[in-house]
Amino acid sequence: MIDYSRFLSRSAERMKESEIRRMGTLAAQRRDIISFAPGYPSPDTFAWADFQEIAQRLLTGQDGNVLQYGPTRGYRPLLECIAAIMESRAAPTSIDRLIVTTGSQQGLDLVARVLLDPHDVILVELPTYTGAITAFRNVMASMVGVRQEADGLALDDLEETYQRVRVDGRRVRCLYLVPNFQNPTGLLIGRTKRRALLEWAERRDVLLIEDDPYRDLYFGDSVTQDDIRPMRADDEGGRVIYMSTFSKTLAPGFRVAWIDAPAAITAKLEIAKQAADLCTGELDQRVVFEACRQGILDRQAPLLRAHYQEKRDAMIAALREGSGPELRWIEPAGGFFLWPTLPEGIDAQQMLPRAIERGVIYVAGEAFFVDGGGNRQVRLSFSAPIIDHIREGVQRLKAAIAQEADARRR
Amino acid sequence: MIDYSRFLSRSAERMKESEIRRMGTLAAQRRDIISFAPGYPSPDTFAWADFQEIAQRLLTGQDGNVLQYGPTRGYRPLLECIAAIMESRAAPTSIDRLIVTTGSQQGLDLVARVLLDPHDVILVELPTYTGAITAFRNVMASMVGVRQEADGLALDDLEETYQRVRVDGRRVRCLYLVPNFQNPTGLLIGRTKRRALLEWAERRDVLLIEDDPYRDLYFGDSVTQDDIRPMRADDEGGRVIYMSTFSKTLAPGFRVAWIDAPAAITAKLEIAKQAADLCTGELDQRVVFEACRQGILDRQAPLLRAHYQEKRDAMIAALREGSGPELRWIEPAGGFFLWPTLPEGIDAQQMLPRAIERGVIYVAGEAFFVDGGGNRQVRLSFSAPIIDHIREGVQRLKAAIAQEADARRR
Repeated sequence: MIDYSRFLSRSAERMKESEIRRMGTLAAQRRDIISFAPGYPSPDTFAWADFQEIAQRLLTGQDGNVLQYGPTRGYRPLLECIAAIMESRAAPTSIDRLIVTTGSQQGLDLVARVLLDPHDVILVELPTYTGAITAFRNVMASMVGVRQEADGLALDDLEETYQRVRVDGRRVRCLYLVPNFQNPTGLLIGRTKRRALLEWAERRDVLLIEDDPYRDLYFGDSVTQDDIRPMRADDEGGRVIYMSTFSKTLAPGFRVAWIDAPAAITAKLEIAKQAADLCTGELDQRVVFEACRQGILDRQAPLLRAHYQEKRDAMIAALREGSGPELRWIEPAGGFFLWPTLPEGIDAQQMLPRAIERGVIYVAGEAFFVDGGGNRQVRLSFSAPIIDHIREGVQRLKAAIAQEADARRR
Repeated sequence: MIDYSRFLSRSAERMKESEIRRMGTLAAQRRDIISFAPGYPSPDTFAWADFQEIAQRLLTGQDGNVLQYGPTRGYRPLLECIAAIMESRAAPTSIDRLIVTTGSQQGLDLVARVLLDPHDVILVELPTYTGAITAFRNVMASMVGVRQEADGLALDDLEETYQRVRVDGRRVRCLYLVPNFQNPTGLLIGRTKRRALLEWAERRDVLLIEDDPYRDLYFGDSVTQDDIRPMRADDEGGRVIYMSTFSKTLAPGFRVAWIDAPAAITAKLEIAKQAADLCTGELDQRVVFEACRQGILDRQAPLLRAHYQEKRDAMIAALREGSGPELRWIEPAGGFFLWPTLPEGIDAQQMLPRAIERGVIYVAGEAFFVDGGGNRQVRLSFSAPIIDHIREGVQRLKAAIAQEADARRR
């Protein structure tokens, strides 16, 4: 039997399994478990009948290219459609800046490979999206975290962190941000802070990676278009690499997302993608294009907002109901996630077996921190479970917390 | 205007555009051009009606997971199906050794990332598949070429190359091979040579990456199952990482391929894939699974063999017809490619503008060589064009060669 470890690259030696994916595997092993773990959109909301009809028309065989290899940049009509979406987000662009990616995860991977060498410094939010952490870790970049406040990244900590890295003799190359309804916190970066971040990037000669998957899922009671305006819209210096996706609005099963970046960088992303997967699935791209062209995406958006708002409200109501352990959170104004802090003395990771035993699962906060923090926090996704399960799951969670607190007191 | 080159990673600085993809872009610009450039399967052969029906049933919305994120390893029933395919190839396997990839290109990329550090040596055939070259180059591996003979890799050159690398103080980690109807040469590695390569890998402590996309496309007149038997089938030492795909037999638009590797390596490939694209498209995987389950794949195989054999025959007949420039080739017994050598003094790359002017396009040999060779060779794909276009394209090619030879003589 060969010991294969001696054949592994240094990058492979350091690779760690995604905590979210691990929770998904755990959850799949018990049928009765209620999962707040993965940030899955709700399949009830997918436009099944439309997709069925679109697929039917595409698969007649009249156009052989529907199942052929396609251009690495993406299906041209879809790229034009994405350009129109960018314009509707106040960020007009041109085709040479755009590339379709096989989901946003591939976008993160390509950006990491094109911009980061081993030990290069990239600043990330504390906490930040685990998928980004994995992509940056796999190119052996050095991630340094910056604290967040209620309106997003703390500017003073950003500058201090930057200076600390500089004193160390290292250069900060990029800052990765999820400005709208961040994964995992649900936070929204404030309007003036967005401007300040752009100015800071310009002053410090840093590129901003703006990851924007949730922006269409704002909740009508408090958010305006101005609040979710991409930083890319005000990027006069050419500092922003903007990413977004159809996974949360149409369906993740299609694996279609995009990057808008300075043309010189997009040209490199294209070559990186040639080696990564040649092209994104042509059928998937055409279904997504048709869904845009036929107005299905526009029709879906308000339905999705109402759907996820109702689920957020149900989760919060269930958490507030009755007595029980004291949890604190900032109410998310959009997206998929609630990010509560557990009572003092309770460790989210250590509590997990007890929660699973009670039939509920979440992602412990640590997975989202590059500095080892987050041990008292949990990410609860309210997006996928039905309302009854949200209520029941929250009761189970509260029972697990109470039991855990009790066990600690003894 | 920012100079973005100072933001690029060292890997990105070295990235080069794929010659095949570049030819594809060129070809797309002229409607009347006959393209022997990309190795595209023929869309006429796709099982359109079956795919239409399968998609119809999958997209009813009854099973929400059809358009959801899926497990990184792949859709479980498809993995079981792949295990059965491996068994039919005389290489029984187990589920923990398998992972679905987003096309074989992703397989190459993941294998490269998990096994190769910058400057690590990987041996490749002279010539070899450009997509592999790009994947290995993007992890900054050092590719060293080994000469081929009519029955595949030259064993003496393999050992000499190995020793040369060792004397250099470097370690050979892997050997990458396409044993069946190689891209670009169409060569088949002989039966005894396959055994010898396995023994060599064992003796020299090297992993074999066996890339096997074309094996089902053998031509009935000369090839037996024994000739295309995977090296993986006789791999007692656990040396082989085996890759194959549904792109050439069902359709590339689905982006579904797989890797069979020692479980410890597959576990790392899975983590690399988590960061690369989370999961392969679920709809694509389910269509492919249904196509296997319903026997469509089995039904397609003999049709495809007849189809591509007819095209190969048409291309060879057209090349032989009449007088004209003298080309030499080894007749491919399967696959998509013919690999002729041009008359002495003619450079394939330099001749390209003349060929395009005449309305035909190919890939010049250089793109497939890691040592700068191949300047007199061209890769002609007979897979996609219809027979009439094959005939006409070959006439155009011969005219271009004659004209080029004429111009040289003056």
